[in-house]
Amino acid sequence: MILSALLTSVGINLGLCLLFFTLYSILRKQPGNVGVYAPRLVAQGQSQASAEFNLERLLPTAGWVRTAWQPSEEHLLSTLGLDAVVVVRIFIFSLKVFTFAGIVGVFVLIPVNFLGNQLSEDFSDLPNKSLDSFSISNVNVGSNRLWIHFCAAYVFTGVVCYFLYCESLYISSKRIAYFYSCKPQAHQFTVLVRGIPVSPESSCGETVERFFTEYHPSTYLSHTVLRRTSKVQGLISDAEKIRKRLAHLKLSTQSEQRFRRDGFLGIFGRKVDIIDHYERKLGDLEDNLRMEQSSLGKQEVPAAFVSFKSRLGAAIALHIPQGVNPTEWVAERAPEPQDVHWPFFSSSFIKIWIFKLVVVVACVSLTILFLIPVLIVQGLTNLEQLETWFPFLESILKLNVVSQVITGYLPSLILHLFLSLVPPIMIFFSSMQGYMSFSQIEKSACTKVLWFTIWNIFFANVLSGSALYQVNIFLEPKKIPKVLAEAVPSQAAFFIAYVVTSGWTSLSSELFRLIPLICSFFKRLFAGKDSNEFDVPSTPYHSVVPRIVFFGLLGVTYFFLAPLILPFLIIYYCMGYIIYRNQLLNVYSSKYETGGKFWPIVHNSMIFSLILMHVIAIGIFGLKKLPLASSLIIPLPILTLLFDQYIRRRFLPIFKAYPVECLVNKDRADENDPAMAEFFDKLVSAYRDPALDPLQYSRNTDGQNAPLLGAAEV
Amino acid sequence: MILSALLTSVGINLGLCLLFFTLYSILRKQPGNVGVYAPRLVAQGQSQASAEFNLERLLPTAGWVRTAWQPSEEHLLSTLGLDAVVVVRIFIFSLKVFTFAGIVGVFVLIPVNFLGNQLSEDFSDLPNKSLDSFSISNVNVGSNRLWIHFCAAYVFTGVVCYFLYCESLYISSKRIAYFYSCKPQAHQFTVLVRGIPVSPESSCGETVERFFTEYHPSTYLSHTVLRRTSKVQGLISDAEKIRKRLAHLKLSTQSEQRFRRDGFLGIFGRKVDIIDHYERKLGDLEDNLRMEQSSLGKQEVPAAFVSFKSRLGAAIALHIPQGVNPTEWVAERAPEPQDVHWPFFSSSFIKIWIFKLVVVVACVSLTILFLIPVLIVQGLTNLEQLETWFPFLESILKLNVVSQVITGYLPSLILHLFLSLVPPIMIFFSSMQGYMSFSQIEKSACTKVLWFTIWNIFFANVLSGSALYQVNIFLEPKKIPKVLAEAVPSQAAFFIAYVVTSGWTSLSSELFRLIPLICSFFKRLFAGKDSNEFDVPSTPYHSVVPRIVFFGLLGVTYFFLAPLILPFLIIYYCMGYIIYRNQLLNVYSSKYETGGKFWPIVHNSMIFSLILMHVIAIGIFGLKKLPLASSLIIPLPILTLLFDQYIRRRFLPIFKAYPVECLVNKDRADENDPAMAEFFDKLVSAYRDPALDPLQYSRNTDGQNAPLLGAAEV
Repeated sequence: MILSALLTSVGINLGLCLLFFTLYSILRKQPGNVGVYAPRLVAQGQSQASAEFNLERLLPTAGWVRTAWQPSEEHLLSTLGLDAVVVVRIFIFSLKVFTFAGIVGVFVLIPVNFLGNQLSEDFSDLPNKSLDSFSISNVNVGSNRLWIHFCAAYVFTGVVCYFLYCESLYISSKRIAYFYSCKPQAHQFTVLVRGIPVSPESSCGETVERFFTEYHPSTYLSHTVLRRTSKVQGLISDAEKIRKRLAHLKLSTQSEQRFRRDGFLGIFGRKVDIIDHYERKLGDLEDNLRMEQSSLGKQEVPAAFVSFKSRLGAAIALHIPQGVNPTEWVAERAPEPQDVHWPFFSSSFIKIWIFKLVVVVACVSLTILFLIPVLIVQGLTNLEQLETWFPFLESILKLNVVSQVITGYLPSLILHLFLSLVPPIMIFFSSMQGYMSFSQIEKSACTKVLWFTIWNIFFANVLSGSALYQVNIFLEPKKIPKVLAEAVPSQAAFFIAYVVTSGWTSLSSELFRLIPLICSFFKRLFAGKDSNEFDVPSTPYHSVVPRIVFFGLLGVTYFFLAPLILPFLIIYYCMGYIIYRNQLLNVYSSKYETGGKFWPIVHNSMIFSLILMHVIAIGIFGLKKLPLASSLIIPLPILTLLFDQYIRRRFLPIFKAYPVECLVNKDRADENDPAMAEFFDKLVSAYRDPALDPLQYSRNTDGQNAPLLGAAEV
Repeated sequence: MILSALLTSVGINLGLCLLFFTLYSILRKQPGNVGVYAPRLVAQGQSQASAEFNLERLLPTAGWVRTAWQPSEEHLLSTLGLDAVVVVRIFIFSLKVFTFAGIVGVFVLIPVNFLGNQLSEDFSDLPNKSLDSFSISNVNVGSNRLWIHFCAAYVFTGVVCYFLYCESLYISSKRIAYFYSCKPQAHQFTVLVRGIPVSPESSCGETVERFFTEYHPSTYLSHTVLRRTSKVQGLISDAEKIRKRLAHLKLSTQSEQRFRRDGFLGIFGRKVDIIDHYERKLGDLEDNLRMEQSSLGKQEVPAAFVSFKSRLGAAIALHIPQGVNPTEWVAERAPEPQDVHWPFFSSSFIKIWIFKLVVVVACVSLTILFLIPVLIVQGLTNLEQLETWFPFLESILKLNVVSQVITGYLPSLILHLFLSLVPPIMIFFSSMQGYMSFSQIEKSACTKVLWFTIWNIFFANVLSGSALYQVNIFLEPKKIPKVLAEAVPSQAAFFIAYVVTSGWTSLSSELFRLIPLICSFFKRLFAGKDSNEFDVPSTPYHSVVPRIVFFGLLGVTYFFLAPLILPFLIIYYCMGYIIYRNQLLNVYSSKYETGGKFWPIVHNSMIFSLILMHVIAIGIFGLKKLPLASSLIIPLPILTLLFDQYIRRRFLPIFKAYPVECLVNKDRADENDPAMAEFFDKLVSAYRDPALDPLQYSRNTDGQNAPLLGAAEV
């Protein structure tokens, strides 16, 4: 790709971004769109849309930037929770890292690269210069200037590690502070116990009661045995749907809509009263439901939520093996009550085992299938190949603008579209794996999406060729540096374009929320004014975090290969910082709080990026005939791994479990709290499966809210 | 190697074994040898050597076999502890496995192999037949008879896994029973806490006291802060030596020995009274010692033994992270007081880190250096090569007996001699690694010796060639089965001879205890009758366990390749069973009790052996042009690994920590025990560093016993 093509791409994308920002600043002020652009505020009753028309509503303003910028971190922490703050901190961390990298890259490395003449182009025609002139490929073979790159790699690694340390320290201290500051929560006092050895003569509940009163006499509080409720849950959601439909029908007074033929597609057969029809159906469903619920008592799963009177009590049950047989009485951390993924408990352990295997196979298949769009994209960057494939396009492709748009913009847009399908698929895969909470599912999907992105966007593009060839490389460890050193720099232009298009586009589409906007528009068009209801979307950590982190990988890897990528990355992170703050404050609301458990994923990915950079550096210095530099780089990955080990020992345990010191202090602080008695009363029934509660169900019969959500609140 | 050479070797070794057994049965009855052959019984006061002479003392008898055979496992458990029982169980387990393998091998596989004619030898001359005629090499390429081997591999793997399961179940239940039956022990109530954050204004002891009374108010009992005592310990042992020398000199009344010249080598210079000289030296040392001891108070190490009032209290401190900073207040299991490796505490953490790296380098160097004797041994098995190296030997080597002895006996004897040097070296390496107890050092050395043996005896012999070539194979995973399948069967003869010579010889030398016998003989000759003192040797688990287990690896690997090895292995295990029972009952006494923690090493090695067998099988069936069998074997290692995972989940946790159920039951049983008050009184001072105790030291001034041992008893 030449410089002018890149500039075209930058121009198009900047224009698009500005357009989207302008549209957003207008549309967000329309009262009808408040459900799209500020559902979180509406749900909290903080936003009052004024129906009056004034001129200001039609003028684009930048006020939203100010409101997104202003709130302090303490404010974010108290209103949004620690997970949201971690997302913001990832941007701050990345900005710190790439500001440093950008200064070194632009003022030191790019001039050095540009002064080389390995690619033997002339100086005169800047716009038609290949982007490779700014990359390490342009430095002469054997040139001593490469030692500048060598030093840059060392210094940059040191700086990244320093920032990683500071950030880990900051977030882990926030995590502890958050634990101290939050109110007593049900999941802090509870563990999930699986593998309860139920004897034929006593029920599961009795066994649990006996075991814990025997071995945890001073701290045991209560338990909730789990039941297979997937069938009941299906019935409840069916009934819910029909009830909603019915309510809607009853409201619409047009009598001609009330009758429909009951035959094929509603065209043939005799006319029936639809309301009557639905009411009968609902009645049947409810009978069915009551029957199923009454038989649930026998369908116990040998697992139970066990609650304790203190956090330390729960920690003791969690950390120390309970029974003589280690496969029995297996305790794990309980999720928050509203975070429990109830359908999970219907699967047996063997099923989960099989599903885990299935998920592995599915992930591999998805990875292989995804090579198809990647190959198409690669065809687009190589215009010559495209011409040989589709000869009739030749005349169009000769137009300068068309070719620039195609090489500069289309490839990453296509990739971006395909990639946006991956997070929901991964969520689906993770939910099959038998996790018992949404937060675990999302965290697992987050890791899956990240590695999928790294493999399919980075490695598949870099290595090209068949999938088999890619795998084969990793079976010959000695060749990896050389292969990467040859392949990675040659793809620099593609990844610069990828940051500009995919990165910037993803940000503006995140802000603009095109699809919810269209949905809301059509809903209002067809459903009329009354259906003002909307769901507050939950923060999509599993797609947001991998995306931010992947751009970090690109930045680290290309830092000393093609520093031209860095300015565009910095723009990405600056815009992203504002936009995600805006979205977190206005749009999303988290359904759970993991207390910053997404941070270790960022740390791991950063360490991986550094090691990848070092491996490429070893290869590059080898190719550039500087064997001394190549060997002197080797201590760098080793030092990085040692640093990683240290961080793992120093900070990771804090993200896994709270120490005795915190537990005892917090327990002691609660002792004098008069609200604790009430809390313990609630705790006893906090983990009741919503599908099990007939009272809850009948109470809500005419309500709009699903009983699932109603019962989940403590 | 031909059959007659093997038979020669078997004959020689059987003869040697019988000779050793006969000599043993006579020598053990001599009262002077009681310190060599029954030190354990003497130390316990159970053996009364009668000085009277009778004829029976000179006649060989087999009475010792009966006495070794008779005691029941309960008796062994109560007198010797669980670790000794585990050694006996390894023999029983191996006997079960190889009896089954032997039946299949001798009655099914050997006939099948013998009926092949791949090696195209004639049937007539049995004694001159190569041992390869009995191995899988003799089966025709592409023959359907190989499916018998295929089935044997599957059935054998199943049987081994079944026995492994039973044995793990048995030993883990014994471990729990042992825990329930034993008296309260100091290490059950104690943890070792490292990384104590000492503030400048308070001492380490105060910090520990404050932290544990704050966060473990109901269970905390006491603590013992550790100090740097390596210098004091050096002084104590010097003083001990001089005191012993002095006592010896005072006893010998010959006055001419009392004087010696004080110059060069005691020849020149003026005459001095030696007793006077030593007494002055001792006085200096004691002054020095007192000074050092008084300054010890300041040399605190930020680590302490913290004792609790209950086992559950200690478990809570052990399993749950204590402080907010995970690198502070790190708790680990305390060893038994007499098991503590005191010198360790003088090393800082950085030192331990460096030493760990040094140990890795040292192990690698030892492995490379050990290839030299292995190459010599290989030269001996290939007589032709030996003749080319040393042409002058040609005439001797032509003698039939000489060549048979050399190929059949010498190689493994040399290997055995070199190999016997490895365990002490590994103990030395492990003690440098910063373990804080002898049991951990021995367990780590056990693993090191095992992998060293597997690599240097098995792989080095099988793969031959340079060390570099061997490592290279493991960088190309695809080629491993083929390379092993070509190399392993061709070394069958060597390993059969190895079992017969090295295996059987090691057993008889274990029984005969040649070196202690000679030592004791010379001691009595020179030191006179009075020096009847002797040390009871501690059980050398680190050399015994790897040896038994390595023969298991040979048996599993060669089970379907060369079943001829199996009868000799069975003889080995039968003899070993009796001999080690005898030695454990009479000779060794364990200095510590790990509660069967050596068993997981056996399990791991057995799983490794099975996988190795499967990999070789994949290669063999490929070489024999039976690709279907080759692919159908692939599920077998996968199933084996799944089984391993199951066992790890099911039994390994029991070997790591006792569950709440046991801890609470045992604590509750103790509550009513009136002896507990006295036990807790003792517990407070149980982990006092012996070097720290001036009272202890002065009390023992004239005693024979080292203060080290005296203070270590609870």
